[in-house]
Amino acid sequence: MRKVQYGVAVSLDGYIAGPNGETDWIKIDPEIDFSAIWAQFDTLLMGRKTYEAAMKRLGRAAFSGKVVFVFSKHLEPQGHPGVTIVSDLTSSWIRSLKSQPGKDIWLMGGGTVFRHLLDLGEVDSISVTILPILLGEGVPLMPPPYKPATLALSAHRVYKSGTISGIYEISK
Amino acid sequence: MRKVQYGVAVSLDGYIAGPNGETDWIKIDPEIDFSAIWAQFDTLLMGRKTYEAAMKRLGRAAFSGKVVFVFSKHLEPQGHPGVTIVSDLTSSWIRSLKSQPGKDIWLMGGGTVFRHLLDLGEVDSISVTILPILLGEGVPLMPPPYKPATLALSAHRVYKSGTISGIYEISK
Repeated sequence: MRKVQYGVAVSLDGYIAGPNGETDWIKIDPEIDFSAIWAQFDTLLMGRKTYEAAMKRLGRAAFSGKVVFVFSKHLEPQGHPGVTIVSDLTSSWIRSLKSQPGKDIWLMGGGTVFRHLLDLGEVDSISVTILPILLGEGVPLMPPPYKPATLALSAHRVYKSGTISGIYEISK
Repeated sequence: MRKVQYGVAVSLDGYIAGPNGETDWIKIDPEIDFSAIWAQFDTLLMGRKTYEAAMKRLGRAAFSGKVVFVFSKHLEPQGHPGVTIVSDLTSSWIRSLKSQPGKDIWLMGGGTVFRHLLDLGEVDSISVTILPILLGEGVPLMPPPYKPATLALSAHRVYKSGTISGIYEISK
């Protein structure tokens, strides 16, 4: 079975963006080999906001060579060539995707999609890049409510910038 | 000058307690040498809630041998032997304490006191123990508002439990 990994950068106090969506504090760390990470996955899942932000920042070409699914109840497929709009994110849909041959699946965000899939028991791991900054307020790694999920650290790396990355497996 | 270090355990999503103060997810990690950490400090600073929780959980004897300051506008000194109640937490008060001879000063929380001292520029470092758990909701490492504070990782350790600890210096 292919695995679903949520990949996310957070501040030390657990935010993935500022209260108004600020992400200017997320600097590209030259020591992180993004192309190696990118090559581990052939399929990308993302929510509408993450998709639109990526389109604006990186353009459609950034996703070339990947199968891309965007979760949205409102986006019209014809306006979004090269991606598949999924309006209903169910367990059976994700299980069907995981059972197909291929590389692992990168859940790129946002937190709401992660929370939904986590609650369905369909996220296998989370790759967290913890940046050395305190924001004080912002968009949390995942939305409420309180529902502790135990993790197991399977790999980690500490970069010269002070960034710490960890891969955590989600206990089931 | 003695330094002020905020010491705190957080979930991977940045909470120091659940929404109703839950801390049962904070397990004692047998690999962490608390007595060595404890010996680095001779003075403890804490807010009223942290003080009351520690009294209830550990008792007064836990603080023996330490100089303890509790920040509170309402606690009556006569009811709290062995500790000094400080009603007004000013820059001049903390600078005077830092200039006295002695070991470093441990700011034990909570987040409101940390935020106040951070905004005054009087916190030197933060020791964060990141537990391998997602809570989903809770008391943040520090209260709002958004005001990014850049940190520099000066030491770290990864434990078998999957807990990661980091000492971050606060840039000034």
